[in-house]
Amino acid sequence: MNLAETRLSSEPIFKGSFIDIARDTVRLPNGNESTRVVIRHPGAACVLAVTGNGEVVLVRQWRYACGRALLELPAGKLDAGENPAACALRELAEETPYTADSVKLLHTFYTAPGFCDEVMYLYQAEGVREGSTLKNDEDELTETVLMSREAVKTALQNNEIADAKTLAGLQYWLLNS
Amino acid sequence: MNLAETRLSSEPIFKGSFIDIARDTVRLPNGNESTRVVIRHPGAACVLAVTGNGEVVLVRQWRYACGRALLELPAGKLDAGENPAACALRELAEETPYTADSVKLLHTFYTAPGFCDEVMYLYQAEGVREGSTLKNDEDELTETVLMSREAVKTALQNNEIADAKTLAGLQYWLLNS
Repeated sequence: MNLAETRLSSEPIFKGSFIDIARDTVRLPNGNESTRVVIRHPGAACVLAVTGNGEVVLVRQWRYACGRALLELPAGKLDAGENPAACALRELAEETPYTADSVKLLHTFYTAPGFCDEVMYLYQAEGVREGSTLKNDEDELTETVLMSREAVKTALQNNEIADAKTLAGLQYWLLNS
Repeated sequence: MNLAETRLSSEPIFKGSFIDIARDTVRLPNGNESTRVVIRHPGAACVLAVTGNGEVVLVRQWRYACGRALLELPAGKLDAGENPAACALRELAEETPYTADSVKLLHTFYTAPGFCDEVMYLYQAEGVREGSTLKNDEDELTETVLMSREAVKTALQNNEIADAKTLAGLQYWLLNS
């Protein structure tokens, strides 16, 4: 079945520091016209980093859009032209006291494909150790939280993991280690 | 540590059929001011439905924002005032030939908490069977795809699951059945 929708025209709505928003008119496969609001995002990377003690490195940070703090994998937007693997290593080092030798790609996925093109690259860190010398941006406040596998299982059961990428990363860890 | 950011003012940017966008000025815990673009979304529900043959019910649909078709759990936005469980049952029946007796909540999570308040309710369907009489909206085209546990494992390894909620739901299935 042909499912493709093709763009007929595009009306810019907003151009922000990292998000662009447009309303496109599209041709559907059945011949009808429709409109699609599209949020363009540069993409992001996150990292599953497990310490030598078998604990995963998480960060607690305020999410203004949600009005609450969330417990998440270290993550961040790609800088212009930045390699996603470099971004994952940088975010781990900026947001936590930990650093890593390298990262391995686990999954690549869209976070909200119904209206946004954000691609999330989920990596596993290799050679995790303390000793980051990078600092967070002054206006980015995060707390580091370490959790064992058992603590992660309990947190998942108690619905304490309320972020999609973190749920995917932690379930990967439970399935593959 | 106090992580809370408080709103000082809000400037509307866009009001759409299901998305509202605003740019807020906020006070950070360190006293600085900053701005946050926030996308307000009504929330959505998705459903892990496994047939009596042990196959999960997925849908392939075009995602205009991503410029490609994705393989996903049946899902959809909450109608105004709609209970998320009712939404999950409705979307299963509209998007696939399957229906279910009831659903059980597995996880609740934000899809893109850095800039959007969309909450996703992930359910498991109980009493899954063929025989839906609901129809999709005329302009919503989906193909139903059934996958066994082994096929899901292969699809995950081959990075064929490129949607966050679907990754979370399928990993849940592998971990808990």
